[in-house]
Amino acid sequence: MAGEDRVLANGAKHIDFQTDPSRYRHWKLDVAGDVATLTMDVDENGGLFEGYQLKLNSYDLGVDIELADAVQRLRFEHPGVKVVLLRSGKNRVFCAGANIRMLAGSTHAHKVNFCKFTNETRNGLEDSSENSGQKFITVVNGTAAGGGYELALATDHIIMADDGSAAVALPEVPLLAVLPGTGGLTRVVDKRKVRRDHADYFCTIEEGIKGKRAVQWRLVDEIAPNSKLEAKVTERTKQFAAASKRNGNGKGIALVPLTRNFDDSGIRYGFVNVDIDRAARIATISIKAPDAPPPADIDGMIASGAGFWPLQAARELDDAILHLRINELETAMLVFKSHGDGAQVLAHDAFLEANKAHWLVNEIRQYWKRVLKRVDVTSRTLVTLVEPGSCFVGTLAELVFAADRSYMLAGSRQGDNRAPPAIVLSAANFGPYPMSHGLTRLQSRFQADPSDVETAQAKIGEALDAEEAEKLGLVTFALDDIDWDDEVRVFFEERASFSPDSLTGMEANLRFVGPETMESKIFSRLTAWQNWIFQRPNAVGEDGALRRYGTGVKAQFDMTRV
Amino acid sequence: MAGEDRVLANGAKHIDFQTDPSRYRHWKLDVAGDVATLTMDVDENGGLFEGYQLKLNSYDLGVDIELADAVQRLRFEHPGVKVVLLRSGKNRVFCAGANIRMLAGSTHAHKVNFCKFTNETRNGLEDSSENSGQKFITVVNGTAAGGGYELALATDHIIMADDGSAAVALPEVPLLAVLPGTGGLTRVVDKRKVRRDHADYFCTIEEGIKGKRAVQWRLVDEIAPNSKLEAKVTERTKQFAAASKRNGNGKGIALVPLTRNFDDSGIRYGFVNVDIDRAARIATISIKAPDAPPPADIDGMIASGAGFWPLQAARELDDAILHLRINELETAMLVFKSHGDGAQVLAHDAFLEANKAHWLVNEIRQYWKRVLKRVDVTSRTLVTLVEPGSCFVGTLAELVFAADRSYMLAGSRQGDNRAPPAIVLSAANFGPYPMSHGLTRLQSRFQADPSDVETAQAKIGEALDAEEAEKLGLVTFALDDIDWDDEVRVFFEERASFSPDSLTGMEANLRFVGPETMESKIFSRLTAWQNWIFQRPNAVGEDGALRRYGTGVKAQFDMTRV
Repeated sequence: MAGEDRVLANGAKHIDFQTDPSRYRHWKLDVAGDVATLTMDVDENGGLFEGYQLKLNSYDLGVDIELADAVQRLRFEHPGVKVVLLRSGKNRVFCAGANIRMLAGSTHAHKVNFCKFTNETRNGLEDSSENSGQKFITVVNGTAAGGGYELALATDHIIMADDGSAAVALPEVPLLAVLPGTGGLTRVVDKRKVRRDHADYFCTIEEGIKGKRAVQWRLVDEIAPNSKLEAKVTERTKQFAAASKRNGNGKGIALVPLTRNFDDSGIRYGFVNVDIDRAARIATISIKAPDAPPPADIDGMIASGAGFWPLQAARELDDAILHLRINELETAMLVFKSHGDGAQVLAHDAFLEANKAHWLVNEIRQYWKRVLKRVDVTSRTLVTLVEPGSCFVGTLAELVFAADRSYMLAGSRQGDNRAPPAIVLSAANFGPYPMSHGLTRLQSRFQADPSDVETAQAKIGEALDAEEAEKLGLVTFALDDIDWDDEVRVFFEERASFSPDSLTGMEANLRFVGPETMESKIFSRLTAWQNWIFQRPNAVGEDGALRRYGTGVKAQFDMTRV
Repeated sequence: MAGEDRVLANGAKHIDFQTDPSRYRHWKLDVAGDVATLTMDVDENGGLFEGYQLKLNSYDLGVDIELADAVQRLRFEHPGVKVVLLRSGKNRVFCAGANIRMLAGSTHAHKVNFCKFTNETRNGLEDSSENSGQKFITVVNGTAAGGGYELALATDHIIMADDGSAAVALPEVPLLAVLPGTGGLTRVVDKRKVRRDHADYFCTIEEGIKGKRAVQWRLVDEIAPNSKLEAKVTERTKQFAAASKRNGNGKGIALVPLTRNFDDSGIRYGFVNVDIDRAARIATISIKAPDAPPPADIDGMIASGAGFWPLQAARELDDAILHLRINELETAMLVFKSHGDGAQVLAHDAFLEANKAHWLVNEIRQYWKRVLKRVDVTSRTLVTLVEPGSCFVGTLAELVFAADRSYMLAGSRQGDNRAPPAIVLSAANFGPYPMSHGLTRLQSRFQADPSDVETAQAKIGEALDAEEAEKLGLVTFALDDIDWDDEVRVFFEERASFSPDSLTGMEANLRFVGPETMESKIFSRLTAWQNWIFQRPNAVGEDGALRRYGTGVKAQFDMTRV
């Protein structure tokens, strides 16, 4: 398979999702009053892997990691920012999309992971707009092609230069035999509501569409000649700022670097530990409850900064999931465990719930929502073990409901004098953390009888032992000490023996019951088709379009229609 | 690719979707009063291709063609039938699902086409239940595994023998490294609302679930010991018959064999012609308007039998689409044309609309709905050419809206004294033919401004020329005689040069704007994942599970999680 032996640049041992503006190579983040400007100016020699150059503002995962970081910092560190201008630092080029040589040389797994992360980042722009009131305006100063236009599609407003040259384009089908798979096809018709036959035309021409037709067909919101472009941008910026519901104030919270310690067996963070058993193909993620009660008030929370437990734990969990996804490809299962004082988790939940109108509390809850969504679309079997000493309560109980299966110990273990485990529900389980298809995990779980959600809600605050949790439908299996070890071991061994592909497909179907949203359509319909195409010789074979791109030799297609 | 050289049994030249009960090899259809019994008793030597045996009531496309025919005849030929019992003719086996050796030896295109047709057939059972009041009850007398259980899932009620042996199972993941892709994963959680973690367990065990747990987990509706099974079946049959809204009466309409004439360049039916240009990779489907006005009344319609234009044209179009899908794999495009007197099409639409409460009229309209849905999920570029002499009016205008692109001639052609073409809308365009995601094609088209649907509706009955049709958004491009030939030719040539896979993915995304239903989820999320897995070496490679099944040699998996 292409790319098996691809080498990370600069001797890196793994792909790191942590960065900060001082280390950006591809983006510039400037903040002036209530307007931030995010300028894409890709360093063509700054590719994540060796072997390609990032010309014409094309991007790879490394470029997108910086974008994701910037969007995250805008939410936490810049409470006053109401509008984000997305611009290009290159002349007459907005962004050429995902780098083709990078794609052509990547493994299938890397392509899929790359698309998943870029999708999450683009969904994140929309989430920031909707839930944090930071509105995004894209200024298309030249060609916005493929992933370049898909990035613009994720913003609230697109202004394009009307200079006879600037254009938006989705040339993937005619040029590369793949799809505009980072949300492009879906957003064109579902978000921008471009008529499907216009979309068909647009997605099959290499050169894209410019000028008036781009507006008429709803591909961009407005155009302006270069002489009036900046005035238009200023005008729209003011207008969006005035309409923004952003209610941040003060200095914001600095997202200081995470304290992490990698070794061969895993990662130690402050509240999260990852233990990797490569022989068993299991990564165990343990989350520790806060050591102390929440601060007395908002000022206290701000004083604790990024060390505030809900924020720090979310950042650590997020980083751990991303690391495992892309750097530990043979991991079959993520096993969630927890430990510590559940009462402190609940106290933090209560603090967040009581202060949810505060901008920073809102950001922290929105972030937990996104991290949990990241868990939902992670293609690993998700298992949660509820054992003595665990604290799967409130927010952390979502990891029980996100799991493909959960096991809870009934009673205590022999020789262990800790109390039997309990699950405790809080308001956090009934609203703030919807999945990508719009339902909470409990709503999704209890499709057969929605009144089961209310029954569970009536138990908020009660310590639910295994028998009761099973009765309420909150866990898959309650096992006593006699059965626990064997049952869990057999399950782990069997699961690890199955084809990883069929598990990916099965889990992607079973996890999302009921309705679909634009976001969930992107992860299902569009992503699954793109993954299929990323396996087809017409795209990725020796004579396929991705491999032949730029060689001067035309791709050879098997013309069988499937 | 596996199966390229597979040979059709009995010297057949192509796969034929036409059959009738006298020719069934695998099913028996018995009608007694208001109850029909459909008995599956697969002839293991009756496979569609050479090289495998259909043991244990396993099936291939040939078996499913008979099932689809039976379900269709039940609707048209048996107006009095209110309940259909689905049973096995084998002892202690209900159905083992899709035949593995057939799958293992099939081309990718055949696998995908096979799944698509079986999905349509299962959706057809649900459509009959919902819209024709024929309720389906499955009697699971033994193992219902994989596609066997998926067939049961498509029925209204599942009764299983409680004999310590009969079980339902979806063993695809653990046994074959593929998905329960004929709706199974979706129906388990979305239709039967099995809790997702129970579904996870169920879909990863080979042996399935029997007895009480099958009921508790909602996998079947009820169980009965063998001594009481028949009494239970009789009781439920009476109950469902009493509740059925089936309002048929009289003798029904015999679906006499279609008159067809195949030759190398296409197929001639009565009202439909298919012309295949293999060099250009285009199949042109021309539909002829009725020659005469509709009958004066219902009795007249019944007297005209299967020759009634709306029914005959639908049957011919259905057969043509199915034939092209599976037998003409290199066809890139279906080009729809029409000719004849549009007034007669509209008169037939008006007849159907005026009599829509009549059971047979309802059947005919439901059938058109299904044929048009079949068009929507056909993986070929769909183009409609609206030219002088055409009659894209009412029902036939749906083919303009189903197309990925439509071209309409503005004015007349030089040397052609026919009038410029016109599109005429009727009530048929505003309700009776929803797509699989629940919207009409015009609703789907006009997502940007739903009032455009009302604007179009206000024009019902008016002859809309190209200029007006373009203004209303009904066609993609209106071209005059000077541009027509070149534009259409260049479009055809370009389209045929693209990778068929990327077109399939693109069209599958752009055609379905907005909401999803269980049916559309099956064709998007589930099907796309299954297609991906059908390309993965872990399933279909030399060492993959599908190829290794039954050889005694274990499959070898690449354990990378994608």
